[in-house]
Amino acid sequence: MALRGTFGALALVVACILPTGVVSLWPIPTALETGTTPLTLAPYFNFEVAVPGAPADLIEAVAQAKYYLETDKLGRLVVGRGSNDTLALKGAKSLSSLKLALTEGAKVDSISAESVKPLGTRSEEYILTIPEDGSPATLTANSTLGLYRGLTTFGQLWYYYGGETYTLTSPIDITDAPAYPFRGFALDTSRNFFPITDLTRTLDAMSWVKINTFHWHITDSQSFPLMVAQYPELAINGAYSAEEMYSESDVQYIVAYAAARGIDVLLEIDTPGHTAIIGTTYPDYVACFDASPWATYANEPPAGQLRFALPEVMNFTASLLSSVAKTLPSYYFSTGGDELNTNCYTDDYPTQQQLNATGWTLNDALNIFTETTHGALIAEGKTPIVWEEMVLDWNLTLSNETIVMVWISSEDAAAVAEKGYRIVQAPSNYFYLDCGAGEWLGDDPTGNSWCDPFKTWSEAYTFDPLANLTEAQYELVLGGEQLLWAEQSGPQNLDPIVWPRAASSAEIFWSAQQPGGAPLNVTEALPRLQDIRYRMVQRGLNPIQLQPQWCALRPDACDLYA
Amino acid sequence: MALRGTFGALALVVACILPTGVVSLWPIPTALETGTTPLTLAPYFNFEVAVPGAPADLIEAVAQAKYYLETDKLGRLVVGRGSNDTLALKGAKSLSSLKLALTEGAKVDSISAESVKPLGTRSEEYILTIPEDGSPATLTANSTLGLYRGLTTFGQLWYYYGGETYTLTSPIDITDAPAYPFRGFALDTSRNFFPITDLTRTLDAMSWVKINTFHWHITDSQSFPLMVAQYPELAINGAYSAEEMYSESDVQYIVAYAAARGIDVLLEIDTPGHTAIIGTTYPDYVACFDASPWATYANEPPAGQLRFALPEVMNFTASLLSSVAKTLPSYYFSTGGDELNTNCYTDDYPTQQQLNATGWTLNDALNIFTETTHGALIAEGKTPIVWEEMVLDWNLTLSNETIVMVWISSEDAAAVAEKGYRIVQAPSNYFYLDCGAGEWLGDDPTGNSWCDPFKTWSEAYTFDPLANLTEAQYELVLGGEQLLWAEQSGPQNLDPIVWPRAASSAEIFWSAQQPGGAPLNVTEALPRLQDIRYRMVQRGLNPIQLQPQWCALRPDACDLYA
Repeated sequence: MALRGTFGALALVVACILPTGVVSLWPIPTALETGTTPLTLAPYFNFEVAVPGAPADLIEAVAQAKYYLETDKLGRLVVGRGSNDTLALKGAKSLSSLKLALTEGAKVDSISAESVKPLGTRSEEYILTIPEDGSPATLTANSTLGLYRGLTTFGQLWYYYGGETYTLTSPIDITDAPAYPFRGFALDTSRNFFPITDLTRTLDAMSWVKINTFHWHITDSQSFPLMVAQYPELAINGAYSAEEMYSESDVQYIVAYAAARGIDVLLEIDTPGHTAIIGTTYPDYVACFDASPWATYANEPPAGQLRFALPEVMNFTASLLSSVAKTLPSYYFSTGGDELNTNCYTDDYPTQQQLNATGWTLNDALNIFTETTHGALIAEGKTPIVWEEMVLDWNLTLSNETIVMVWISSEDAAAVAEKGYRIVQAPSNYFYLDCGAGEWLGDDPTGNSWCDPFKTWSEAYTFDPLANLTEAQYELVLGGEQLLWAEQSGPQNLDPIVWPRAASSAEIFWSAQQPGGAPLNVTEALPRLQDIRYRMVQRGLNPIQLQPQWCALRPDACDLYA
Repeated sequence: MALRGTFGALALVVACILPTGVVSLWPIPTALETGTTPLTLAPYFNFEVAVPGAPADLIEAVAQAKYYLETDKLGRLVVGRGSNDTLALKGAKSLSSLKLALTEGAKVDSISAESVKPLGTRSEEYILTIPEDGSPATLTANSTLGLYRGLTTFGQLWYYYGGETYTLTSPIDITDAPAYPFRGFALDTSRNFFPITDLTRTLDAMSWVKINTFHWHITDSQSFPLMVAQYPELAINGAYSAEEMYSESDVQYIVAYAAARGIDVLLEIDTPGHTAIIGTTYPDYVACFDASPWATYANEPPAGQLRFALPEVMNFTASLLSSVAKTLPSYYFSTGGDELNTNCYTDDYPTQQQLNATGWTLNDALNIFTETTHGALIAEGKTPIVWEEMVLDWNLTLSNETIVMVWISSEDAAAVAEKGYRIVQAPSNYFYLDCGAGEWLGDDPTGNSWCDPFKTWSEAYTFDPLANLTEAQYELVLGGEQLLWAEQSGPQNLDPIVWPRAASSAEIFWSAQQPGGAPLNVTEALPRLQDIRYRMVQRGLNPIQLQPQWCALRPDACDLYA
């Protein structure tokens, strides 16, 4: 039996069985039934991995799950933190094992291999059953990736007080699968640099909320921290320092670390804009390099964009992108394409000379550039991903397979869908984690953030992935992501600016109801988000406080109209 | 000779000698002259403490200064981080010692004792001279506190590259003294709790920018983490947990840690509002305790305010405040007094009964309450500090010595000055570090921060302490502080939300020009603030990035109109 078939029947039950007893799960499973019987975790609790030839990363994931069970020690978010549960736990049955198994006939592959399959072909669904009588719990899935998702859920079910690890809500029956195949988090490591340990810690946290894509905006105009074997000078001249650089083995390490946690790494080398720093290595390839005033030529300093009309720049860029892309297992690669500034080329002699010589318009040149760079990626088996301007502001011949990220406004999804492209929802008006931090440019004391105000978790949570789309267009939406642009961020504030807010989209794109169903509800969600936030603290992360702890311990008491 | 006399003559020189070569000092000294000669720190550099009977905290401060010199290893904020300085350092002279001495006849007392003297009587000024020829540097002051300030300045003068600790700008002559006696930072430890290590780390950072007052808003309606020997139940019932509590010895430890770093601890027990949690121990003392809807009775949940009209509550509060105040060396104690909600009393039977029985108005009762509580503090030798409502919204008979904190708006300082009270500037529209983080109440996804937008360092930096005051009122301004209210903060984001922003007011109130002089300039300040921010990182703090590092390495390149 394959689980996928099970889901049609279960989908309609969802709205009726929203949890009352269990506030600990994020994202909330597709179908969840709970009881009211206390159940403790036996001191000798163990995982039975009934998977023939279980891959190493599954064994490691089980060991990690066991470690969290032993060390989370999360007190329940009520006054007293569980001290009143002691009585209820007297005489409670103990759970001594969880059996992991694949559905009959399922092919055994590693989590890492499953995690980087094409979108729509990964099997993340699972069934988790925890009886109330202490008999073994079972976790079943079609793939090791599904087992991994189920392990993550299992780890969120347990509270701790006074030496006991327990749930108050057995039996628990969960049948779960994501609503959307793309659930991401995007990080900019160019404006400011993040060491590898920051990335792995972030990947851990992403895995806890079942985010499955790390969109790594690795380079930009300010720095080029990516060491590329074929073009080492780009990082030597473009990284902030030799210490603030990702070596090829660093990238491979991150890709492997991510894949073992169910996460595909979508690398972005933004082109042809956002490339000023390349001019420190290839001055002939970059127009308006560090030109002044920068505001004439770029959205932020320094100015500088690839001279995409020049054949040598087309070839260089295609070669750069493909030489990086071929080292990565993902089927996807982002070529960027946002915020291209035309003033930069109007004033650029080599570009104008080329346009005159060829009779091309700037759009013609960009079209050839994009065909060249995308062609190189497609030749490597990659599907290109671009920012929305590439299809809304320019008239380019892109592959129908191209995926478009909507970022300027959630309103723009409809126009992208109109053109028939698949969509990743990354709208600044809901999902930009950096908004609201004030102006970062110098000499502008009254300036504010361009995308004010701050996007709270709850505002993000109200995002409707299908808004303004026709029913026929719904299938174009692959999912979405929250993003951290790092002009005002670094290792110093990474955890609190990202978490738990980035969990909002993780739940939207895992748990979203089908069209016509009840929308996700911020009031129902907050206690669960508090729960995962406090669990993150127990696991060593530094997620920001959403409210005074007084509120966290008293669900709904701090609601606007409470 | 006493240094104080020196300052009259120097004050006029200030505007002419603003630094060009030295971008490393924060706050900028009153008078600074620098040269262009490179000078290294000798490997065997040492401090000579020529202070007879040097107190232990001075010896410790010197050891700490030495530690920072050896471990800061701050690269200069230029492209290459100092790699281009190597040539200039060839053959440079070495500085082998700094001699610390008090001015002749100065009384030798500990830093800790000097730090808690009354405002206006502390001597923080110092003279620091570093010759270019390698001969000993000298630091002179009227007090050990002045020496401490000078040590702090000395520690900011040095960069590191390739094994050398150096300055490029010797000789250096500094004569320095603060413009205002009160330079604070306020932290709320009630909405969310901060462990002792967070407080000590914060005190360290405060000392680096010469902040001299830790305004500790230790209790509020949400939790009462302060263990008071006479009233232990307040913390037992009111702290979030036994672990989230400040014992008496914790408080003494913080007070001592602060004093050794030139910082006076101003404790605040906010009354009669912001006291709901007291109702968990003394239900008879609190009106509208956790009443619903909270918004009718309080500015935020939970509702609950002391029944200040009741004699037993007056006596309890006076006893509580004085029993805490008497354990503290500071001359100052804050009784709060903000956001008193009158609905709470209109609906409160015991209060109305008392008003009817006595014929008092609510204002009369508050006046007697305040006379009682302030009287108890004054009897302990403390000067009461209150929030502005106590003098602007209510008609109370307060001691003329009372100090008033302006918080609702910077516009309100004039009205407070009009009444003749001394002022601490703490305006939300410039100095509230928590603004702009979005709504934290539940069920309000489109809500924003009440004091939007975010207050950037540069907006804070434009604050004019004397705005709207008459020349005769200038002397009422004691100084000011930035503040972190902790509804959305905790240990997880403490460093990045506070630093380096809280350094803005530290410089305003140390370095502010005299009336009629040139105002502080955000464009001149930014490279220096970047410098101290990067130094904070070297010292293990987590201050937020103000800009992309590309900008930090290129002063002015990221200015709005660059």
